[in-house]
Amino acid sequence: MASVERAGLRGLLVAPGPDLVYLTGHAPPPLERLTMLVMPADGDPVLIVPALERPLAETAPGAPGLEIREWRDARDDPYALVADVLHSGRYAVTDHTWASHLLALQRSAPDRAFVTAGEVLPLLRAIKDADEIERLRAAGWAADAVFAEVLAVGFEGRAEREVAGELARLLVDHGHQRADFTIVGSGPNAASSHHEAGDRRIAAGDAVVMDFGGVMDHYCSDISRTVFVGEPTEEQREVYDIVRAAQQAAFEAVRPGVQAQEVDRAARDVISDAGYGERFVHRTGHGIGLEVHEPPYIVEGNATALEPGMTFSDEPGIYLVGRFGVRIEDQVAVTAEGAERLNEASRELIVVA
Amino acid sequence: MASVERAGLRGLLVAPGPDLVYLTGHAPPPLERLTMLVMPADGDPVLIVPALERPLAETAPGAPGLEIREWRDARDDPYALVADVLHSGRYAVTDHTWASHLLALQRSAPDRAFVTAGEVLPLLRAIKDADEIERLRAAGWAADAVFAEVLAVGFEGRAEREVAGELARLLVDHGHQRADFTIVGSGPNAASSHHEAGDRRIAAGDAVVMDFGGVMDHYCSDISRTVFVGEPTEEQREVYDIVRAAQQAAFEAVRPGVQAQEVDRAARDVISDAGYGERFVHRTGHGIGLEVHEPPYIVEGNATALEPGMTFSDEPGIYLVGRFGVRIEDQVAVTAEGAERLNEASRELIVVA
Repeated sequence: MASVERAGLRGLLVAPGPDLVYLTGHAPPPLERLTMLVMPADGDPVLIVPALERPLAETAPGAPGLEIREWRDARDDPYALVADVLHSGRYAVTDHTWASHLLALQRSAPDRAFVTAGEVLPLLRAIKDADEIERLRAAGWAADAVFAEVLAVGFEGRAEREVAGELARLLVDHGHQRADFTIVGSGPNAASSHHEAGDRRIAAGDAVVMDFGGVMDHYCSDISRTVFVGEPTEEQREVYDIVRAAQQAAFEAVRPGVQAQEVDRAARDVISDAGYGERFVHRTGHGIGLEVHEPPYIVEGNATALEPGMTFSDEPGIYLVGRFGVRIEDQVAVTAEGAERLNEASRELIVVA
Repeated sequence: MASVERAGLRGLLVAPGPDLVYLTGHAPPPLERLTMLVMPADGDPVLIVPALERPLAETAPGAPGLEIREWRDARDDPYALVADVLHSGRYAVTDHTWASHLLALQRSAPDRAFVTAGEVLPLLRAIKDADEIERLRAAGWAADAVFAEVLAVGFEGRAEREVAGELARLLVDHGHQRADFTIVGSGPNAASSHHEAGDRRIAAGDAVVMDFGGVMDHYCSDISRTVFVGEPTEEQREVYDIVRAAQQAAFEAVRPGVQAQEVDRAARDVISDAGYGERFVHRTGHGIGLEVHEPPYIVEGNATALEPGMTFSDEPGIYLVGRFGVRIEDQVAVTAEGAERLNEASRELIVVA
């Protein structure tokens, strides 16, 4: 908790989510019933839990180091329980804490100030250890296997929604506890980078962007590939090659000491030089771990120096509105010397039926 | 927006989640990139979106009634965009809004006050129309089918985690986009109502509580059943019968005009009269719809009068710490005359191998 004290904070309040998992191993879903870990800068941590989740909390790997206090439906005010253990001063709350909980806390503890942990503290979980990298690799390889299998599904004539369902099913078959997103954008929909799979029937001549992932053993997968239904046009092939070269350039830029924004620039320069700079409408990547999006963000303005054990996506794209789009995404880990890809699925241009 | 004005609010701020889906049909995942719908009490709604999600937002069913403003990574401050369209005064924010977004807004708009929508506004989505009930029924029946199939899986000797994986796979097979939770608590773990499936191997003599659900066409399923591995003891049978009677009593108490807390009392009285009142450690139920937990909560202290179209769970339980537990859960809909169950899976005591 040295970083908490250095930031001038009295402590850190942790709601259910990746930080709670990281700190305690306790992984309840975020719900309207308050669960909150109070980590004072200068005292012992207290975990406040709904009575019905006490048994689960007690079996968490981190439970032996925690004082657990419970509250019961219709009897206790959980916010008063939290306020009881707060001193006056400034506390950081984890980014995902629900507004309903924060506002109730602000009311129960009016003389305390609350700030966003993500702004005042470095991400606790930014540097992954070997075990975490191994879990991310396992999740990534499972996603690779899903991609390899979905190629045989038969795209032409199927609705995007059906392919998305297939991706969800395959992710679970390959060991994911949960498929979290299964973007399938075909034809003009491929030009919408966060398109939701819909009723559009995939047709010959389409580029199909698939961007999918989920959670395996608490760690996230996230991969994108673009395939073509039948022979691509010259223009489609050219755009594909530019995106692939940009993705490779970003990968080659990754090594300890390089700033996050330099990786973004490496991809962006390739796309801008080819004349498509305005069509690359998002950052190059995001960190990944217990969360599918987390620091470090690979974006202009982020001068964070990369360190071994950081993991993030490398996912440039080009989107030609109303026509087609291409995105290629791998997860990568910073190593002592450079970088390792956590996805091995082919990045060659693939034509499907 | 009459209820917003009546509550003395200048407007409602809606983050990604069930309220945004309900109001606009736009369903992006909640992320660190701000998406926010501003609904002024006396003006036109504005949807602020990341540039890369604009195409998706524009195809949402509710988009024609919205002004859409975009912001781009590394160029724009999304909170300033929101602050720009706020007048001074009090705004409600939806409960799930991330603390990081709320705190940034509080800083960008220091002369506005923010309150939790869930406290100052009735749930917009509390009364389901026929189409919504039909979707909840479809999700419920899919969960019923999963329960019927999982019975054949062979419990004895399998790890809880394996049965949970099977439940997740079956939910997707039966049309769910996503399995959200697959609680499998066996033996002493069945006494922990929110137990997470773990490595414990299921043994003869165990009660096994399964509580699972997910999302189908945006609407949630949530069902619990308790099965016995081999013949139950007299005590297990007695506890099962009490919980089943309590669940039935709550169901029979449901009709328009009855208060939510009276439904809780109907279940609780049966369990208390049988001497297990202290072992029923949670409320009887929660509303369900676009969210798996939402108002009305079926809990002592909630005097909300039930209305036709409200939907919620009926899920009493008895938990004997260190030994076993039983929970039986259906979703129910309030009808003009009484109630309809949205789950049809058997509530008879079932013995599995």
